[in-house]
Amino acid sequence: MSGFASRADEFRPSPVRAVFEVARDPSVVSLAGGNPDLSVLPADAVGDVASLLLRGRAGEILQYGSGAGMDGLRELVVKLMARGGSSVTGADILPTTGSQAGLDLVTKLFCNPGDVILAEGPTYVGALGVFGAYEVEVQHVAMDHDGMQPEAVARALDDLAAQGRRVPFVYAIPSFQNPTGVTMPEERRRELVAVCAERDVMIVEDDPYALLAFDRSEPLASMHGMDPEHVIHLGSFSKIFAPGLRVGWMAAPPEVRGRLQIAAESVVIHPSNLAQSLVTSWVGSEHWEPALDRAVELYRERWEAMKEALIEFMPETASWTTPTGGFFTWVTAEEIRGKDILAAAIAHGVVLVPGSASYMDGRDSNAVRLAFSGVAPARIREGVKRFAEALRAL
Amino acid sequence: MSGFASRADEFRPSPVRAVFEVARDPSVVSLAGGNPDLSVLPADAVGDVASLLLRGRAGEILQYGSGAGMDGLRELVVKLMARGGSSVTGADILPTTGSQAGLDLVTKLFCNPGDVILAEGPTYVGALGVFGAYEVEVQHVAMDHDGMQPEAVARALDDLAAQGRRVPFVYAIPSFQNPTGVTMPEERRRELVAVCAERDVMIVEDDPYALLAFDRSEPLASMHGMDPEHVIHLGSFSKIFAPGLRVGWMAAPPEVRGRLQIAAESVVIHPSNLAQSLVTSWVGSEHWEPALDRAVELYRERWEAMKEALIEFMPETASWTTPTGGFFTWVTAEEIRGKDILAAAIAHGVVLVPGSASYMDGRDSNAVRLAFSGVAPARIREGVKRFAEALRAL
Repeated sequence: MSGFASRADEFRPSPVRAVFEVARDPSVVSLAGGNPDLSVLPADAVGDVASLLLRGRAGEILQYGSGAGMDGLRELVVKLMARGGSSVTGADILPTTGSQAGLDLVTKLFCNPGDVILAEGPTYVGALGVFGAYEVEVQHVAMDHDGMQPEAVARALDDLAAQGRRVPFVYAIPSFQNPTGVTMPEERRRELVAVCAERDVMIVEDDPYALLAFDRSEPLASMHGMDPEHVIHLGSFSKIFAPGLRVGWMAAPPEVRGRLQIAAESVVIHPSNLAQSLVTSWVGSEHWEPALDRAVELYRERWEAMKEALIEFMPETASWTTPTGGFFTWVTAEEIRGKDILAAAIAHGVVLVPGSASYMDGRDSNAVRLAFSGVAPARIREGVKRFAEALRAL
Repeated sequence: MSGFASRADEFRPSPVRAVFEVARDPSVVSLAGGNPDLSVLPADAVGDVASLLLRGRAGEILQYGSGAGMDGLRELVVKLMARGGSSVTGADILPTTGSQAGLDLVTKLFCNPGDVILAEGPTYVGALGVFGAYEVEVQHVAMDHDGMQPEAVARALDDLAAQGRRVPFVYAIPSFQNPTGVTMPEERRRELVAVCAERDVMIVEDDPYALLAFDRSEPLASMHGMDPEHVIHLGSFSKIFAPGLRVGWMAAPPEVRGRLQIAAESVVIHPSNLAQSLVTSWVGSEHWEPALDRAVELYRERWEAMKEALIEFMPETASWTTPTGGFFTWVTAEEIRGKDILAAAIAHGVVLVPGSASYMDGRDSNAVRLAFSGVAPARIREGVKRFAEALRAL
């Protein structure tokens, strides 16, 4: 055989994949997966919507579509993004096969091998997989309880520029971050945007959790809305409707959006019309927001259950972030020593994502990500209890 | 802004995209698009299948799925590939977001910038877009009425090896080729496989039209079935069911398949569960094969109508291929001089794909691709008549 490309050495199976295999065992409590709770969705109503779409528009939905995505979906996204303060038109939006595909495309468009991306430390495991596939280095930027520190970003950008290193963009997850659950306040977002705009560096704002604040009355201001020329926004319907459909979107300045579409067409021709039209009909219907309200209420209750269990069971040395929305908390403890924690947790009947997975270099981490989104409160309590037992046994 | 990656210079809008814009004008006859005819699909029945799936399995279909694809789809593909003589198991199959995504992944896995891919001359426009995005060179191999010539492939591989050039794979569309409509006979396929296997070079067999022989009683033998260790097979449901769903698959040797899955997960996490399950249910149902039979009968009638019109209207200098299935014929004529042909055709109210689009270097070509798959016979006759008028006016 001809052998693989040099980039193939960077195709690494996600370090959390093994975790999800274990999590299939029903006796194991999974605090690993960032799954939305779909029990709030009336399956019959979703089925009826799909049936109506196909009965009425089969010739359009089943046939080849446009690389620009479906008009109705782009108009829906315009309305959703207005909640975050973005003034966009349908022409600024590019629907994608999930927001992961958006991140792949933006990396493909901007990054040469050996470039450096600044990202939160820790950051989303799946982003590290994308950056690795394009042979890009990741420099992690320090976070505090308000997220990525703009002054640390400024310092890193200036240092890298002085070294002649190319930094195509800063990658940030501003709302209920994966994996820490931390949210950047509006002022912090403005500072980060200013730091990057001054240096003419793009920000890739990966914002799938933006609409999942426990207090849904106060929408978070997106960085894209603050400076649409310097921010590429990645959005997703996975957390606010259904990840199995694989529908997300990008918003980007016109020249960037045009090139992203060309790149996207060469990968998938166009996103699935059926998935796009089901998202458009469902999220555009009167069913959607009440179901989302119920789901977020579940997430809030589950976080409360997790917090109570953490207080009750965790050793003295442990601390954790306090999410105000989203799916995750980040638990730090002296007893957690790098990669041993996963095997120990599994031995005690609970799975979670070890902190080391969230760093490009796989460094040892004395933290883990716990997800509360997809598990009932009693199971959360049991899972945290088992995790505490695992820690004590280390 | 930070500027684009060097590969971005190779992201070119498909030269046929402008064609499809023009083709939306209903007064224009489109012989451009390789669209399947979907009038054979009972929309109500397809809608009912989707509704049943969501009513019965919403929790699975709407939730995150596996990067390995859905089991039922992989089992269905095993049965389909058996028709071409491939003995595979579900573990050999990787469902993809359309076969275009499969081609993107295999190029990503195997190709470094500057590598050379051997492909038919002419070849599929969309493949050239993928190869360009990975900064790969394409060397076109001569074809005759039986397709790609194995001895020309052998010569090219040996020459390139002598030059120290890396050839990750040979890309071939063996059945009812896009754009020529030509089919490689079984013996020719065996020769090509032998030439490549002797030199330990992979073949990427892109075979979306395999089941569209006008005589459906004789399935074509796939190269994958002849040597599964040296052939990666790309399959598609776009031509045999519905392109708008974006579902295809790859079959590859185990190590390659494993790496392709890791690469795929970093791009899309997993293909759309709704699209996968609708394909599985429909193509696995008693509805599918009769509808496909009707569609292929339509394609055969349309090819007959096109052939009659070509005989009636084309100038003496013209010749064309004689497809025995699929969607296309390739018309060569002295009067066709490179890129002017498209503007001339549009001015006469017909669109088609100019031959130059099918070569990586965009060379002048005295040929065009005519598609007969999606147009009724009377419109085909009118379109060919207009094309002949355009030729005479040049």
